[in-house]
Amino acid sequence: MDTLPEKPAWLNRVSILGVGLLGGSVGMSLRRSGVHVVGYSRRESSCRAAIQAGAVDEGFTDIARAAQGSDVVVVASPVDKIVALAIEADAVLAETALITDVGSTKAEIVAEITERSPSAAAKFVAAHPIAGSEKTGVENATATLLDGKLVVLTPDETTSTELLERSKTFWLQTGGRIVPMSPTEHDQRLAAVSHVPHLVSSVLASLLDEECMPLVGSGWKDMTRVASGDPAMWTAICEQNREAILGQLERFADTLGSLREMLVTGDTTALRRWLEDAKTRKDATQ
Amino acid sequence: MDTLPEKPAWLNRVSILGVGLLGGSVGMSLRRSGVHVVGYSRRESSCRAAIQAGAVDEGFTDIARAAQGSDVVVVASPVDKIVALAIEADAVLAETALITDVGSTKAEIVAEITERSPSAAAKFVAAHPIAGSEKTGVENATATLLDGKLVVLTPDETTSTELLERSKTFWLQTGGRIVPMSPTEHDQRLAAVSHVPHLVSSVLASLLDEECMPLVGSGWKDMTRVASGDPAMWTAICEQNREAILGQLERFADTLGSLREMLVTGDTTALRRWLEDAKTRKDATQ
Repeated sequence: MDTLPEKPAWLNRVSILGVGLLGGSVGMSLRRSGVHVVGYSRRESSCRAAIQAGAVDEGFTDIARAAQGSDVVVVASPVDKIVALAIEADAVLAETALITDVGSTKAEIVAEITERSPSAAAKFVAAHPIAGSEKTGVENATATLLDGKLVVLTPDETTSTELLERSKTFWLQTGGRIVPMSPTEHDQRLAAVSHVPHLVSSVLASLLDEECMPLVGSGWKDMTRVASGDPAMWTAICEQNREAILGQLERFADTLGSLREMLVTGDTTALRRWLEDAKTRKDATQ
Repeated sequence: MDTLPEKPAWLNRVSILGVGLLGGSVGMSLRRSGVHVVGYSRRESSCRAAIQAGAVDEGFTDIARAAQGSDVVVVASPVDKIVALAIEADAVLAETALITDVGSTKAEIVAEITERSPSAAAKFVAAHPIAGSEKTGVENATATLLDGKLVVLTPDETTSTELLERSKTFWLQTGGRIVPMSPTEHDQRLAAVSHVPHLVSSVLASLLDEECMPLVGSGWKDMTRVASGDPAMWTAICEQNREAILGQLERFADTLGSLREMLVTGDTTALRRWLEDAKTRKDATQ
C-alpha cells in the first residue's frame, strides 16, 4: 500500500497480546512502516508461529516482558479476556502509552476497564477493525487485511483528546480508516450487521439435513460461511452484547413474521415489492 | 473441460427458450460439443445479444421457428412461464424430442404440464441445474457454469425409461452431474437449502439502516449476496413452492426461538454447544 502515512516518531514498539488472524494482521501491517512488533502468546509454539509468519519481530509467553517499553499495546484476544489482559499490561507501561483492542463488542469492555482499573482506563481507547473472517490463526493473517477497512474507535467521556488523537494515528498506520462512535452505538449497529447475521448463518447451517447436503449451491455456501467461525469467540460476543443482539433478533423475527404472512395470504404484490425493497438496500451497499 | 462425454448422434439441434444467465450458459456448454444451439427471446435485441455472447448460433423471436426440428427444447424462463412455453414448443416437435427446463421449483410445473397437455408431458423431463447466481442476463453466462454442478431430474411415474435416459444423456453433455428425485422431494429440499435462505438473505438486507451501512463487513455482504436476485423470479418461486417454504420457515423460526431462549436465560454452555453443532454441519459441506 503506497498510501500509508509516514510513521510518527513516537511509534516505535507495539505489543500484540494474542497473535491470531487479526492480531497477526495488525502486526504485519505495522511492520511495513518499520515498527518493532512484539507478540504475546501463552504458548511458546504460538510465539514461534507468529515470528515465522512474519507477524511479529519477537514473541514472549510473559505479558510483562512483551508489554514493557511498548508505545502501544493491542489486545487481540477473545472479547471476554480483553480487560484482564489490558490491566496486566498496564502495570508495566509508561504513562503515555496507548492500550487499544480489536474486540467485536465495546460497551461492556469500556465499562469494565473503567470500573476495574482507572490507570488502564486512562490509557485505553477501544477499537474494532471491521475486518473479520471465519478463518482463524496467524497462518491466515495478511499485512493488507486492514487496508481501507473501517476501524471503529469508541472513546468515552473520560478519554482525553490527546489519547484519542494518538489512537487515530496508530490505527491509520495499520492501513485502516477511522470512524468514531459511542460504545453503545457500536454495539447496537454491530448487532445488526454482524452478530445477528452470524447467528442467522448458524441457524441455516444447523438446519441442514443429510439428504439436503448434496444440493447446497453457492447461495447457501455464502450464507453459511461465517457459521464456520470459532464457537468460543462467538459465545463470548453473544454474552457481551446480549441486549443489543436480542433487540435485533426481535426485529428480524418480526420481519420474518410479516414475510410469512405475505406467503400465507398469497399477497404476491406485497411480496414482490418487499423483495424489491430488500434488493435496493442490498445494491446500495455495493 | 476435457471430461465431457462424446456427443450422442441423436443430439444435433437444441432450442433454448429464454437466453438469460442459465439458458445462455446451457447453450454455451453445448456448443463446446458442436451442438447447433438456437435461442428464443421475445425481443430481437435479446436474440442479438445471445448470438453476440456466443450462447446460441441463431436467435428467433418466434417459438415455433426456434423449436422446429430440435432434438431438445430447454425452457429457461421464470418458473411461472415454463409450462406455457413447453406446450407452445411441443406443437412443432417430433414425437422423439425431449423437453426439459431449468426451473427452481418442480412439483407444480410437473403437475400442471400433465394436466394441461398430455402430448407435451410425454416429452417432458423436469430438471434443475443447481448453478444459480444473483447475476442475471446472457452477458454473465459462461460455458463452464454447469461443469461439475448437480442437475436434479424429477421424472414422475409417467416418464418412460427411454426419455429419462435421454434427459440424463442430454444434461451430462452440459457438464453437469445427474441426481434423480421426485418433484416433491426436490421442492422440499430446495426450500431448505435455497428458497428459505434466499428469503432470510432478503430479511437481513431489508433491515439495514442508513447508519449501519458503512459498518457492513464481508460476513454481511456474503449473507446478502443473493438478496440482489431478480424479485420477479423469486416471487414466482415463492408462489410455486409456497407450502414447502412455509414449512421450512417454521423450522427456521423455531430454531431462532430456541436460540433466543439461550440468550435470554444466559445459558452459554448450551449456546456454545449449539454454535459448535452448526459449525460441524457447515464444515461437513466443504
